Amino acid sequence: MDTNGAIAWDVYADTCPTRKILDRIADKWTVLIVGRLSTSKQRFGELRREIHGISPKVLTQKLRELERDGIIVRRVYASVPPKVEYRLTPLGGTLIELLDAIRVWSETHIESILEAQQVFDSQARDGEGEED
Amino acid sequence: MDTNGAIAWDVYADTCPTRKILDRIADKWTVLIVGRLSTSKQRFGELRREIHGISPKVLTQKLRELERDGIIVRRVYASVPPKVEYRLTPLGGTLIELLDAIRVWSETHIESILEAQQVFDSQARDGEGEED
Repeated sequence: MDTNGAIAWDVYADTCPTRKILDRIADKWTVLIVGRLSTSKQRFGELRREIHGISPKVLTQKLRELERDGIIVRRVYASVPPKVEYRLTPLGGTLIELLDAIRVWSETHIESILEAQQVFDSQARDGEGEED
Repeated sequence: MDTNGAIAWDVYADTCPTRKILDRIADKWTVLIVGRLSTSKQRFGELRREIHGISPKVLTQKLRELERDGIIVRRVYASVPPKVEYRLTPLGGTLIELLDAIRVWSETHIESILEAQQVFDSQARDGEGEED
Protein backbone atom coordinates (compact mmCIF):
# COMPACT_ATOMS: atom_id res chain seq x y z
CA MET A 1 0.00 0.00 0.00
CA ASP A 2 1.24 3.50 -0.69
CA THR A 3 0.28 6.53 1.38
CA ASN A 4 -2.99 6.96 -0.52
CA GLY A 5 -4.10 3.48 0.45
CA ALA A 6 -3.72 2.25 -3.13
CA ILE A 7 -1.86 -0.98 -3.69
CA ALA A 8 1.63 -0.45 -5.07
CA TRP A 9 2.08 -3.36 -7.48
CA ASP A 10 5.72 -4.25 -8.02
CA VAL A 11 6.96 -6.97 -10.36
CA TYR A 12 10.34 -6.90 -8.59
CA ALA A 13 8.72 -8.38 -5.47
CA ASP A 14 8.39 -12.12 -5.91
CA THR A 15 5.28 -12.27 -3.73
CA CYS A 16 3.44 -9.63 -5.77
CA PRO A 17 0.69 -11.12 -8.00
CA THR A 18 2.07 -9.07 -10.89
CA ARG A 19 5.15 -11.31 -10.94
CA LYS A 20 3.01 -14.29 -12.05
CA ILE A 21 1.41 -12.16 -14.75
CA LEU A 22 4.80 -10.97 -15.95
CA ASP A 23 5.83 -14.61 -16.19
CA ARG A 24 2.75 -15.40 -18.29
CA ILE A 25 3.08 -12.42 -20.63
CA ALA A 26 6.87 -12.45 -20.98
CA ASP A 27 6.75 -15.95 -22.46
CA LYS A 28 7.55 -17.07 -25.98
CA TRP A 29 4.40 -19.18 -26.30
CA THR A 30 2.21 -16.27 -25.19
CA VAL A 31 3.88 -14.03 -27.80
CA LEU A 32 3.23 -16.64 -30.52
CA ILE A 33 -0.35 -17.47 -29.47
CA VAL A 34 -1.44 -13.83 -29.09
CA GLY A 35 0.26 -13.11 -32.43
CA ARG A 36 -1.85 -15.75 -34.19
CA LEU A 37 -5.05 -14.60 -32.49
CA SER A 38 -4.36 -10.94 -33.26
CA THR A 39 -5.85 -11.18 -36.75
CA SER A 40 -8.50 -13.89 -36.38
CA LYS A 41 -10.01 -16.49 -34.10
CA GLN A 42 -8.34 -19.87 -34.33
CA ARG A 43 -9.06 -23.50 -33.62
CA PHE A 44 -6.75 -25.57 -31.47
CA GLY A 45 -5.43 -27.51 -34.46
CA GLU A 46 -4.73 -24.32 -36.40
CA LEU A 47 -2.65 -22.92 -33.55
CA ARG A 48 -0.80 -26.20 -33.18
CA ARG A 49 0.11 -26.31 -36.87
CA GLU A 50 1.15 -22.69 -37.09
CA ILE A 51 3.25 -22.56 -33.94
CA HIS A 52 5.93 -25.07 -34.84
CA GLY A 53 7.33 -27.09 -31.99
CA ILE A 54 4.58 -26.55 -29.42
CA SER A 55 3.29 -29.80 -27.93
CA PRO A 56 -0.47 -30.34 -27.59
CA LYS A 57 -0.01 -30.55 -23.83
CA VAL A 58 1.79 -27.21 -23.55
CA LEU A 59 -0.65 -25.53 -25.97
CA THR A 60 -3.61 -26.79 -23.92
CA GLN A 61 -2.02 -25.52 -20.71
CA LYS A 62 -1.11 -22.10 -22.14
CA LEU A 63 -4.59 -21.61 -23.64
CA ARG A 64 -6.21 -22.49 -20.34
CA GLU A 65 -3.97 -20.09 -18.38
CA LEU A 66 -4.64 -17.27 -20.86
CA GLU A 67 -8.38 -17.99 -20.66
CA ARG A 68 -8.24 -17.93 -16.86
CA ASP A 69 -6.44 -14.57 -16.97
CA GLY A 70 -9.19 -13.12 -19.18
CA ILE A 71 -6.83 -12.66 -22.14
CA ILE A 72 -8.54 -15.12 -24.49
CA VAL A 73 -12.03 -16.62 -24.76
CA ARG A 74 -12.78 -20.23 -25.60
CA ARG A 75 -16.05 -20.70 -27.43
CA VAL A 76 -17.66 -24.10 -28.04
CA TYR A 77 -20.14 -24.45 -30.91
CA ALA A 78 -22.80 -27.17 -30.63
CA SER A 79 -21.97 -28.75 -33.96
CA VAL A 80 -21.12 -32.39 -34.64
CA PRO A 81 -18.27 -32.78 -33.89
CA PRO A 82 -18.22 -29.80 -31.51
CA LYS A 83 -16.19 -26.89 -32.84
CA VAL A 84 -13.99 -24.97 -30.40
CA GLU A 85 -12.52 -21.59 -31.20
CA TYR A 86 -10.22 -19.20 -29.37
CA ARG A 87 -10.14 -15.44 -29.73
CA LEU A 88 -8.68 -12.47 -27.86
CA THR A 89 -10.78 -10.55 -25.33
CA PRO A 90 -10.60 -6.73 -25.32
CA LEU A 91 -8.00 -7.08 -22.52
CA GLY A 92 -6.03 -9.51 -24.69
CA GLY A 93 -6.27 -7.02 -27.54
CA THR A 94 -4.24 -4.52 -25.51
CA LEU A 95 -1.31 -6.97 -25.68
CA ILE A 96 -1.11 -7.23 -29.48
CA GLU A 97 1.11 -4.26 -30.22
CA LEU A 98 3.31 -4.89 -27.19
CA LEU A 99 4.01 -8.53 -27.95
CA ASP A 100 4.32 -8.02 -31.69
CA ALA A 101 7.11 -5.53 -30.96
CA ILE A 102 9.04 -8.33 -29.25
CA ARG A 103 8.62 -10.64 -32.24
CA VAL A 104 9.77 -7.84 -34.56
CA TRP A 105 12.75 -7.06 -32.31
CA SER A 106 13.85 -10.70 -32.40
CA GLU A 107 13.57 -10.88 -36.18
CA THR A 108 15.25 -7.46 -36.67
CA HIS A 109 18.26 -7.96 -34.42
CA ILE A 110 19.00 -11.64 -34.95
CA GLU A 111 22.01 -10.97 -37.17
CA SER A 112 23.69 -8.67 -34.61
CA ILE A 113 23.01 -11.29 -31.97
CA LEU A 114 24.46 -14.15 -34.00
CA GLU A 115 27.59 -12.04 -34.56
CA ALA A 116 27.88 -11.23 -30.85
CA GLN A 117 27.55 -14.94 -30.04
CA GLN A 118 30.39 -15.80 -32.42
CA VAL A 119 32.67 -13.23 -30.84
CA PHE A 120 31.76 -14.42 -27.34
CA ASP A 121 32.34 -18.06 -28.18
CA SER A 122 35.73 -17.29 -29.75
CA GLN A 123 36.98 -15.63 -26.56
CA ALA A 124 38.07 -18.29 -24.12
CA ARG A 125 37.63 -17.04 -20.60
CA ASP A 126 38.97 -18.22 -17.29
CA GLY A 127 36.51 -19.84 -14.96
CA GLU A 128 34.59 -17.30 -12.97
CA GLY A 129 34.22 -17.39 -9.26
CA GLU A 130 31.39 -16.17 -7.14
CA GLU A 131 30.44 -12.55 -7.54
CA ASP A 132 28.81 -10.20 -5.15
CA MET B 1 15.29 -17.35 -48.12
CA ASP B 2 12.79 -15.15 -49.89
CA THR B 3 12.86 -14.41 -53.60
CA ASN B 4 15.45 -11.63 -53.13
CA GLY B 5 17.89 -14.04 -51.57
CA ALA B 6 17.44 -12.42 -48.15
CA ILE B 7 16.83 -14.68 -45.20
CA ALA B 8 13.20 -14.63 -44.07
CA TRP B 9 13.46 -14.91 -40.31
CA ASP B 10 10.33 -16.38 -38.73
CA VAL B 11 9.80 -16.90 -35.01
CA TYR B 12 6.92 -19.30 -35.80
CA ALA B 13 9.43 -21.82 -37.20
CA ASP B 14 11.02 -23.72 -34.32
CA THR B 15 14.27 -24.22 -36.26
CA CYS B 16 14.70 -20.48 -36.94
CA PRO B 17 17.41 -18.88 -34.75
CA THR B 18 14.97 -16.08 -33.93
CA ARG B 19 12.93 -18.56 -31.86
CA LYS B 20 15.78 -18.88 -29.34
CA ILE B 21 16.10 -15.10 -29.17
CA LEU B 22 12.37 -14.73 -28.64
CA ASP B 23 12.70 -17.21 -25.79
CA ARG B 24 15.49 -15.15 -24.23
CA ILE B 25 13.75 -11.77 -24.61
CA ALA B 26 10.22 -12.91 -23.76
CA ASP B 27 11.35 -14.02 -20.32
CA LYS B 28 10.47 -12.55 -16.94
CA TRP B 29 14.09 -12.51 -15.72
CA THR B 30 15.23 -10.68 -18.86
CA VAL B 31 12.49 -8.07 -18.32
CA LEU B 32 13.59 -7.58 -14.71
CA ILE B 33 17.36 -7.55 -15.41
CA VAL B 34 17.11 -5.15 -18.37
CA GLY B 35 14.78 -3.00 -16.26
CA ARG B 36 17.41 -2.66 -13.52
CA LEU B 37 20.20 -1.98 -16.01
CA SER B 38 18.15 0.59 -17.90
CA THR B 39 19.07 3.40 -15.50
CA SER B 40 22.54 2.39 -14.30
CA LYS B 41 25.21 -0.27 -14.34
CA GLN B 42 24.84 -2.82 -11.57
CA ARG B 43 26.93 -5.31 -9.65
CA PHE B 44 25.84 -8.93 -9.37
CA GLY B 45 24.87 -8.53 -5.72
CA GLU B 46 22.78 -5.45 -6.46
CA LEU B 47 20.80 -7.29 -9.12
CA ARG B 48 20.35 -10.25 -6.81
CA ARG B 49 19.00 -8.08 -4.00
CA GLU B 50 16.69 -6.03 -6.20
CA ILE B 51 15.18 -8.90 -8.19
CA HIS B 52 13.48 -10.80 -5.39
CA GLY B 53 13.32 -14.54 -5.79
CA ILE B 54 16.06 -15.03 -8.39
CA SER B 55 18.65 -17.61 -7.37
CA PRO B 56 22.37 -16.85 -7.80
CA LYS B 57 22.58 -19.76 -10.24
CA VAL B 58 19.77 -18.51 -12.47
CA LEU B 59 21.05 -14.92 -12.32
CA THR B 60 24.55 -16.06 -13.34
CA GLN B 61 23.12 -18.08 -16.24
CA LYS B 62 20.84 -15.27 -17.48
CA LEU B 63 23.64 -12.67 -17.30
CA ARG B 64 25.97 -14.93 -19.24
CA GLU B 65 23.34 -15.60 -21.95
CA LEU B 66 22.56 -11.88 -22.26
CA GLU B 67 26.29 -11.13 -22.47
CA ARG B 68 26.74 -13.78 -25.16
CA ASP B 69 23.85 -12.25 -27.14
CA GLY B 70 25.52 -8.82 -27.02
CA ILE B 71 22.74 -7.33 -24.89
CA ILE B 72 24.82 -6.64 -21.79
CA VAL B 73 28.53 -6.13 -21.10
CA ARG B 74 30.39 -7.53 -18.12
CA ARG B 75 33.30 -5.38 -17.00
CA VAL B 76 35.88 -6.51 -14.46
CA TYR B 77 37.88 -3.85 -12.60
CA ALA B 78 41.31 -4.81 -11.33
CA SER B 79 40.64 -3.76 -7.77
CA VAL B 80 41.06 -5.85 -4.62
CA PRO B 81 38.70 -7.62 -4.43
CA PRO B 82 37.93 -7.44 -8.17
CA LYS B 83 34.80 -5.44 -8.92
CA VAL B 84 32.47 -6.73 -11.63
CA GLU B 85 29.77 -4.57 -13.19
CA TYR B 86 27.10 -5.17 -15.80
CA ARG B 87 25.62 -2.60 -18.14
CA LEU B 88 23.49 -2.59 -21.30
CA THR B 89 25.13 -2.38 -24.73
CA PRO B 90 23.59 -0.07 -27.37
CA LEU B 91 21.76 -3.16 -28.68
CA GLY B 92 20.47 -3.88 -25.17
CA GLY B 93 19.36 -0.26 -24.92
CA THR B 94 16.91 -0.84 -27.77
CA LEU B 95 15.08 -3.28 -25.51
CA ILE B 96 14.42 -0.88 -22.63
CA GLU B 97 11.17 0.69 -23.82
CA LEU B 98 9.84 -2.59 -25.19
CA LEU B 99 10.38 -4.59 -22.02
CA ASP B 100 9.32 -1.80 -19.70
CA ALA B 101 5.99 -1.75 -21.52
CA ILE B 102 5.48 -5.36 -20.46
CA ARG B 103 6.23 -4.56 -16.83
CA VAL B 104 3.83 -1.62 -16.97
CA TRP B 105 1.14 -3.77 -18.64
CA SER B 106 1.41 -6.37 -15.88
CA GLU B 107 1.14 -3.74 -13.15
CA THR B 108 -1.68 -1.88 -14.92
CA HIS B 109 -3.94 -4.84 -15.69
CA ILE B 110 -3.37 -7.02 -12.66
CA GLU B 111 -6.73 -6.13 -11.10
CA SER B 112 -8.71 -7.08 -14.24
CA ILE B 113 -6.75 -10.32 -14.38
CA LEU B 114 -7.37 -11.21 -10.75
CA GLU B 115 -11.10 -10.60 -11.33
CA ALA B 116 -11.08 -12.78 -14.46
CA GLN B 117 -9.33 -15.55 -12.52
CA GLN B 118 -12.00 -15.43 -9.80
CA VAL B 119 -14.80 -15.74 -12.36
CA PHE B 120 -12.99 -18.59 -14.14
CA ASP B 121 -12.36 -20.50 -10.92
CA SER B 122 -16.01 -20.14 -9.83
CA GLN B 123 -17.27 -21.75 -13.04
CA ALA B 124 -16.95 -25.49 -12.75
CA ARG B 125 -16.44 -27.00 -16.17
CA ASP B 126 -16.76 -30.51 -17.47
CA GLY B 127 -13.57 -32.31 -18.36
CA GLU B 128 -12.38 -31.42 -21.79
CA GLY B 129 -11.43 -33.93 -24.41
CA GLU B 130 -8.94 -33.60 -27.21
CA GLU B 131 -9.45 -30.72 -29.58
CA ASP B 132 -8.43 -30.31 -33.14
